Amino acid sequence: MYLAANSTTILESLRALMTIANIGGLIVPSGDAHYTEFIAECHERRAFISGFTGSAGTAIVTQTEALLWTDGRYYLQAEQQLDPALWTLMKDGLAGVPSQSQWLKDNIPAGESVGVDPTLYSKAQWDNMQRELQSVGKSLVPTENNLVDEVWSTDRPPCASDPVIELGIEFAGIRTEEKLKNVRKEMADNGAAALIVAELDEVAWLLNLRGSDIPFSATFFAYVLVTETNFHVFINQIQLSSNITDTLRANVPEIQFHEYTDITRQLNETVHSSADSKIWFNQNTNYALINLIPADRQIMKLTPIALMKAIKNPTEVDGYRKALIRDAAALCEFFAWLEPEISSGAVVTEISAAQKLVSFRSQRENFFNESFPAISAAGPNGAVIHYMPTPETDRRINPNDMYLLDSGALYKDGTTDITRTVHFGVPTEHQKDCYTRVLKGQIALTRAIFPNRMVGSRLDSFARQFLWEAGLDYAHGTGHGVGSFLNVHEGPFSLGSGHSSLDPGFRENFFTSNEPGYYEDGEFGIRLENLIRVKNVSLDHNFQNRGFLGFEDLTFVPYEHKLINFSLITTDEASFIFLSFIHRYNKRLGWNDAAYDWLFKATVPLNQNGPIQDPTSTTPSDLTSTSPSETPSSSNTEGSSSETPSSSTTSKANEQRTNLMLPMIPVVIFKALKLV
Amino acid sequence: MYLAANSTTILESLRALMTIANIGGLIVPSGDAHYTEFIAECHERRAFISGFTGSAGTAIVTQTEALLWTDGRYYLQAEQQLDPALWTLMKDGLAGVPSQSQWLKDNIPAGESVGVDPTLYSKAQWDNMQRELQSVGKSLVPTENNLVDEVWSTDRPPCASDPVIELGIEFAGIRTEEKLKNVRKEMADNGAAALIVAELDEVAWLLNLRGSDIPFSATFFAYVLVTETNFHVFINQIQLSSNITDTLRANVPEIQFHEYTDITRQLNETVHSSADSKIWFNQNTNYALINLIPADRQIMKLTPIALMKAIKNPTEVDGYRKALIRDAAALCEFFAWLEPEISSGAVVTEISAAQKLVSFRSQRENFFNESFPAISAAGPNGAVIHYMPTPETDRRINPNDMYLLDSGALYKDGTTDITRTVHFGVPTEHQKDCYTRVLKGQIALTRAIFPNRMVGSRLDSFARQFLWEAGLDYAHGTGHGVGSFLNVHEGPFSLGSGHSSLDPGFRENFFTSNEPGYYEDGEFGIRLENLIRVKNVSLDHNFQNRGFLGFEDLTFVPYEHKLINFSLITTDEASFIFLSFIHRYNKRLGWNDAAYDWLFKATVPLNQNGPIQDPTSTTPSDLTSTSPSETPSSSNTEGSSSETPSSSTTSKANEQRTNLMLPMIPVVIFKALKLV
Repeated sequence: MYLAANSTTILESLRALMTIANIGGLIVPSGDAHYTEFIAECHERRAFISGFTGSAGTAIVTQTEALLWTDGRYYLQAEQQLDPALWTLMKDGLAGVPSQSQWLKDNIPAGESVGVDPTLYSKAQWDNMQRELQSVGKSLVPTENNLVDEVWSTDRPPCASDPVIELGIEFAGIRTEEKLKNVRKEMADNGAAALIVAELDEVAWLLNLRGSDIPFSATFFAYVLVTETNFHVFINQIQLSSNITDTLRANVPEIQFHEYTDITRQLNETVHSSADSKIWFNQNTNYALINLIPADRQIMKLTPIALMKAIKNPTEVDGYRKALIRDAAALCEFFAWLEPEISSGAVVTEISAAQKLVSFRSQRENFFNESFPAISAAGPNGAVIHYMPTPETDRRINPNDMYLLDSGALYKDGTTDITRTVHFGVPTEHQKDCYTRVLKGQIALTRAIFPNRMVGSRLDSFARQFLWEAGLDYAHGTGHGVGSFLNVHEGPFSLGSGHSSLDPGFRENFFTSNEPGYYEDGEFGIRLENLIRVKNVSLDHNFQNRGFLGFEDLTFVPYEHKLINFSLITTDEASFIFLSFIHRYNKRLGWNDAAYDWLFKATVPLNQNGPIQDPTSTTPSDLTSTSPSETPSSSNTEGSSSETPSSSTTSKANEQRTNLMLPMIPVVIFKALKLV
Repeated sequence: MYLAANSTTILESLRALMTIANIGGLIVPSGDAHYTEFIAECHERRAFISGFTGSAGTAIVTQTEALLWTDGRYYLQAEQQLDPALWTLMKDGLAGVPSQSQWLKDNIPAGESVGVDPTLYSKAQWDNMQRELQSVGKSLVPTENNLVDEVWSTDRPPCASDPVIELGIEFAGIRTEEKLKNVRKEMADNGAAALIVAELDEVAWLLNLRGSDIPFSATFFAYVLVTETNFHVFINQIQLSSNITDTLRANVPEIQFHEYTDITRQLNETVHSSADSKIWFNQNTNYALINLIPADRQIMKLTPIALMKAIKNPTEVDGYRKALIRDAAALCEFFAWLEPEISSGAVVTEISAAQKLVSFRSQRENFFNESFPAISAAGPNGAVIHYMPTPETDRRINPNDMYLLDSGALYKDGTTDITRTVHFGVPTEHQKDCYTRVLKGQIALTRAIFPNRMVGSRLDSFARQFLWEAGLDYAHGTGHGVGSFLNVHEGPFSLGSGHSSLDPGFRENFFTSNEPGYYEDGEFGIRLENLIRVKNVSLDHNFQNRGFLGFEDLTFVPYEHKLINFSLITTDEASFIFLSFIHRYNKRLGWNDAAYDWLFKATVPLNQNGPIQDPTSTTPSDLTSTSPSETPSSSNTEGSSSETPSSSTTSKANEQRTNLMLPMIPVVIFKALKLV
């Protein structure tokens, strides 16, 4: 992060430029031109002028004032980082704090305009702000250049320009020319003569290229403009090797490479090449581009790529399975290292633990980078949902702390995101109760069966039901899509309490996280996050031929047995917890010995009374085999397109009749698998 | 229903009037000026001109054509009733069938207008149609009078004008002056100087009056206009007794009674009495009224009455409990009569059964009317979700038919709506499986615990989950609000798959139906419908002080044991089914002996293996008492504002450990209760 070296000077320079530009106020958003989640340092303009480095916030500067709006997550950090002599903190969400538009309406002198870099505002943002300002006789105007960039010269970090890399067909699964054909078919079906692709992950997916322009992302700055006959790529040309351009030209003869900034010129040309053809873009495309298109020729909705990219192809599904198994091995190695470290009294902090985890992950095949900054949170820090340890907050992991670790990696064959919560001492009954309710909710969601195209808001309650029964809940969504060696947060579907008209509903081979939690301010935080694949299921009936879906659990890191209150766990749930780890044992993962022993201990067979302490002493009569109908489909690693789920209705009823249902896998299998 | 005696003459007369009115097309909707669900015969204008008597449909007449749009429920009926020489049936929802607006755009000659009675079109309908027509240079115009009424003279049934009745405070619970105070407070909080109350149930609720102008409804035609200082009531004055007007004048001194049609004049006066005051109305208010209000002075959203009316007051809650117990007694008497009738080979048809049911209900205290036409459906007719038997479809109830009966009554102390599905012979395993999944879903929803203000679309899946597991579902919502001696279908909340921005979320003392189902075309239909009350629950925790809610089941008609597959039923569910009927036995209901015996047989104690065939022989050791924590709150009839629900998490876990959990009420209690 680049902190404001001299905010006074910066503001003076900015205000001089504002006078020249004839604007009474300047809006400085925190995003870049592509609405990316993580921001490259060279685009941290709001941080540069204000000194506030939180991920969310907007600055507004006038000739006499400088204000920064941010939300509740960042009140404290903003107070510490802003110079109160220069900056006013506007706490978004607090009663009495005006919105940005309200403040501008009240404080910009009549007749004056407010400026913003139109590449940093979406059409929706622009329209809303413009309507507000015009309702009081003021107006929003686009600035010619970005005024912050003009005062940010000597100490501005360079924007990344490392070469992009080709993602081989063995990872991408479908070639660009094939994807392009599908995109053009959708364009034709929707009456669009051109499509602007402005989301960086959509560009990367379409081109089967990856980059590293942005932290924790395998994307690079580029636009694509697709027409029926042309395929324009706008990118900093020095990032393209001749190998890549040659390959693309060979397969997509009409491809044309342009400099990144040429998008404006080319889009203008496309607009003027026809009087009435429609141009398709999505709701996050910046106003600088959309403003070039006459209103009656705009088609603003999700691009066809959003859904194509979310539905993983067979190669991607297969890669994901492998990446998640490697990732689980790294996690197991990490916990096998961490547990004795803590027990022995060694000093391990949130940051040092996260660094150690990266060292395990980075040794794994196809590792590229972390997929986001790890949330390594001990004790009360776990209750801060968006916590990221900094040197100031870095806490030693104590044996009596709950420890929440939410982390992930970008592998060439898949993006991972997993959360586990552990305890190295003796948890309280309350902590166990909370953990168990979170776990039960996660299992209930994974076991849900539902009609094709169901939206996530209608499944989300399955994950919360056991918390609700105790008067508990969590103030975040239950899951998010995950890109394939792309963004760790991906649309277009959602899995939470909210309703979105853009949500296409669940489809086969969507990947989503499943991450219920519970947080107690100042005390502890619990979150359990697995990645699950949407799968077709074959049932006795098929209502209205809609097709039915379920989930395949693909995250194979054990839960913390000592945090489970087994009196709340049903037989089916115990079976689920246990069986979901079985198939790891026949993988040649190259576990280190410590990790293998740790894993073996962490996944002892369960019954409804909890772990069976010494599985080797369990008599064969206790160890009945799994009947076929009770095999959870999550143990299926073949990715068949239609799978028979366990009938939980039936097994829920059965579970009352059986005294000892689990373990269902004879211990001899454990022994045998260890030899593999 | 009044069928068109001579559609040719009617159309000729209408077309002559259209020429005089200078309109090229006339839209004849099926509704009245208040968007009521059931339509008085004197308002069945669309049926009068077309002959089609289905509940949904819109006619459009031009000089050369006459068309009727209706949906899939009514294709067959419309084909039978429309004269094909005069009318064209437009099957809404079929591919290639243009919408009404599209047809008008394509077929009305350029420059001509389309007319509609503006009292029969809501603002939203008007705006949509106007926008469509204007986009092609045509326009929608209000007709001066209703043209159909002008040709419908000699044989038009008179509109009901029976006296309205006062609903005593012992039923209403809150006096009009108190309700009015609360309404004015909401008006002030929302900056509204006036409020138009156009929904008939809102008018009736506010005035504590009831009427019988509309079939199956206790409402009467009236408007109310509330201002800070005035309270205008618009009604056919002959329906008001001097007793009623005197009482209202005594309690609300500012009240003014006007003729029904004076609303236009008074609203105009109110609008012109101020230049900028806001006027509040809801989205269903007709365009004739809204058109009088300048756009910048309109507040269009749910009236404050919608929510006040949905939250039943303690008197209404108490009345509801009593009404539902009386209603259950009538249902039990009916089934106790029906079962031996069918067994003995007597001919009982759908219509005769429904008539018999009315005879039982009408003997009960406070009975006013049916709350809707009973859906009495035997065999394959049960699969027609909106079935209503007619002489043409009336089917004998055979011992081998499933029989679905969805019926309800308006009592002065509550409105009922209940569905049971029974079988008098030997159901198939498939039928039992389906019935059991419907039942399990109904129980799961009733047992759900959830945060205050949760919307129904996030609970609906609980009711469907067991059907989904088998690939089944139902194509209707799961529940609807119910008025207190008012409409059987009431808002403003919903409980289904849909999302509505108007939904305020569940609040304590909402009443909703809980009615999952399953339908197999040409074979059978299953629906189980109970009325449940939203109750506050007191839990160990209270996340974000939101408060938590659950449901109290208030429908006490037994389920059909022979349709339950007990191998799918958990112990908790068996407990729920059994316990939900216990407290009826200490009510002095005046059951007839046959009904009591039938009820006793239909509610034998259950365990997870099904009914215990001879409960009197059950040994005491099998009959453990209910522990307090396992008592479902539905057995609480005191209506305390906060109740402790059974912790189903705990009991779900417990149920694995116990071999015989139920019956939990000693048989001696049955014996004792019979003596009460």
